Amino acid sequence: MVKNAFYAQSGGVTSVINASACGVIQTARAHSDKIGKIYAGQNGIIGALTEDLIDVSVESDADIAALRYTPSGAFGSCRFKLKSLEQNKREYERLIEVFKAHDIGYFFYNGGGDSADTCYKVSQLSEKMGYPVQAIHVPKTVDNDLPITDCCPGFGSVAKYIAVSTREASFDVRSMCLTSTKVFVLEVMGRHAGWIAAAGGLAADADNDIPVVILFPEIVFDEEKFLAAVDAKVKSHGYCSVVVSEGCHYADGKFIAEQGTRDAFGHAQLGGAAPVVANMVKQKFGYKFHWAVADYLQRAARHLASKTDVDQAYALGKAAVEYAAAGDNAVMPTIVRESSTPYKWSVGKANLADVANVEKFMPRDFITEDGFGITPACREYLTGLIQGEDYPPYKDGMPAYVTLKNQLIAKKLERFEV
Amino acid sequence: MVKNAFYAQSGGVTSVINASACGVIQTARAHSDKIGKIYAGQNGIIGALTEDLIDVSVESDADIAALRYTPSGAFGSCRFKLKSLEQNKREYERLIEVFKAHDIGYFFYNGGGDSADTCYKVSQLSEKMGYPVQAIHVPKTVDNDLPITDCCPGFGSVAKYIAVSTREASFDVRSMCLTSTKVFVLEVMGRHAGWIAAAGGLAADADNDIPVVILFPEIVFDEEKFLAAVDAKVKSHGYCSVVVSEGCHYADGKFIAEQGTRDAFGHAQLGGAAPVVANMVKQKFGYKFHWAVADYLQRAARHLASKTDVDQAYALGKAAVEYAAAGDNAVMPTIVRESSTPYKWSVGKANLADVANVEKFMPRDFITEDGFGITPACREYLTGLIQGEDYPPYKDGMPAYVTLKNQLIAKKLERFEV
Repeated sequence: MVKNAFYAQSGGVTSVINASACGVIQTARAHSDKIGKIYAGQNGIIGALTEDLIDVSVESDADIAALRYTPSGAFGSCRFKLKSLEQNKREYERLIEVFKAHDIGYFFYNGGGDSADTCYKVSQLSEKMGYPVQAIHVPKTVDNDLPITDCCPGFGSVAKYIAVSTREASFDVRSMCLTSTKVFVLEVMGRHAGWIAAAGGLAADADNDIPVVILFPEIVFDEEKFLAAVDAKVKSHGYCSVVVSEGCHYADGKFIAEQGTRDAFGHAQLGGAAPVVANMVKQKFGYKFHWAVADYLQRAARHLASKTDVDQAYALGKAAVEYAAAGDNAVMPTIVRESSTPYKWSVGKANLADVANVEKFMPRDFITEDGFGITPACREYLTGLIQGEDYPPYKDGMPAYVTLKNQLIAKKLERFEV
Repeated sequence: MVKNAFYAQSGGVTSVINASACGVIQTARAHSDKIGKIYAGQNGIIGALTEDLIDVSVESDADIAALRYTPSGAFGSCRFKLKSLEQNKREYERLIEVFKAHDIGYFFYNGGGDSADTCYKVSQLSEKMGYPVQAIHVPKTVDNDLPITDCCPGFGSVAKYIAVSTREASFDVRSMCLTSTKVFVLEVMGRHAGWIAAAGGLAADADNDIPVVILFPEIVFDEEKFLAAVDAKVKSHGYCSVVVSEGCHYADGKFIAEQGTRDAFGHAQLGGAAPVVANMVKQKFGYKFHWAVADYLQRAARHLASKTDVDQAYALGKAAVEYAAAGDNAVMPTIVRESSTPYKWSVGKANLADVANVEKFMPRDFITEDGFGITPACREYLTGLIQGEDYPPYKDGMPAYVTLKNQLIAKKLERFEV
């Protein structure tokens, strides 16, 4: 029996979430015996609630293929969390109604921990409501904090971006440190988990003796120890690069970015962790500093994506559809690490019941004892994920990313307020 | 008669200054009838003053070839300006003494406006002192502010980085703006000239309707007009990207970054222009914002260099040596624009007397009348400079940049304090 499929992107977008979309859509198009139309949620799950469904069938094969190298969320994403069935029953029921109205039997939800949870609940509730929907979660998150899977699509490319940027900026600072900047601080994403910050450690390797001090959210910030670590590097190398996670915090949980800074009008502080850290170094040692905040640049940088990451993002989108076509429900395709050197991986399968609401942190043995670096085990883990380059095509010097038509289908239900 | 050559890197480094070094060294090695040993200044001109001369001959051909794709200054650079002959006579004379002691007859100085001036003075003074040195300037500056030459090596790659990053981040924001960030601010370099900020305008084109508001140092900042421009874009597109030059300032010359912000301890403000601008938007409209500061990442990003820029950087290094071998003195090779569509260029020659102390600003007709965008003339100018990609080789997922041996030769003179 042929049913339609619904695909939605959830939460913060990445440089490869569209590669997963590409995997889902291309594979669904090849399974016309099971899957009819493919709809996508305009702005993610909100589009399903408001019945703003994008008709993917009007998009050309070429444009769908271009999703593989286009960063961001091609159909729009949103930060909208469906909580427990009790608190959000109305929304869950609406979702099922919309699916029913449009003969949708497959739900592909592409996101992080929250969306895995939502996906699981939809599969449960639809069963109860007598309109069973096969709900498959496609993992995505730059935070790399989902359990079971070896890594999350989106993370490998951010890791590569941060590793490469840290190396490049360190080369820059090294050449100027005699008369100019001695301490360079780069702020990276990761409010709870230090995976992205850890990637800064890859700037250094056997061929590149680069002094890097990393500030992880997993390690309570100790200003005195930090300053001593930076000073030691400046004394030994003439300069030091600092990679600070936005989630770096004190023992009481207060983020170091929250310094109570006020502008001339008394407005609360504007800044991030990088300027705070840089200023500590300046106050203590007088070293000239520079700082950068990568912000969205790091997760949008498709121009420097990891080929491994792109391949995995696509493979998990493809596997999700294959699982659905084979009758699976409430599962998530995962990356299974077959070997580290060389990095080899395959696609596995996890039950959403085991994924939902479990957060994966950096193992303590991935962080050096002093708390400021990565161990060989961490390096081995990360190195596999940044393997290979996968450049987008360029036109006139600029990457030729695709913008889809995103044409909505006619609504059948009453208006629904989100 | 064979004379030795001296090469030094000056001021802020770029992602392609080593490509110029590669052009100088490879071409000098091919002119052994005129040029003997090649020495490089350790940390730029300071190395010449302190007689810390790097023996380039010990570097392998492979390592010299790798300079073409290695960012930063391979021999070290410095911020050290030799002022007038009256003020710095002692330094100028010392330079000539060091050149004489090491039989150096060619001086290749790779930098911006200040180094062009120094180069010119060395040529004049060496003549007077009876030890004539052929001084050739190799242009380099991300600021793109040298006269006569169509552009400066280093700028095209920063322009490409800022254009691509702005497009990528804009795609990201576009996909999330319904429930998340509506205004994204990217701070870029350029204290006096808005060339780099202008490159943010390339994020949008006929295929990419991206709303970008640019804040140039050439245009006096008007908060009310700026906020209205941002709001109009948010209303028409749902979001807005802002590219702000670090040099953006008020009518009285005060930089917008100088907001008199104090932290909890009363220390002066830490931040740049981006958080200030983002906060203005937040205060006025309540729009959720994010901001990034590219800082050194933009000028070190060899992974995304413009092929045109790399080719030009190499060509000017090569031309400098060819001019020297042909007997030229006090000149600078330049880029001559032969046509814009398609971009075609050749190498020309300028007299240093015409280059020194002249700064090139953005023409007013490169900026739209409202002061927030680039005109078609500016787009035409910039587009040529970002043509082509020139990726470095990667090893284990990371760019394989070279670190030279940088072995010093024996000193012959007395110690000199800089």
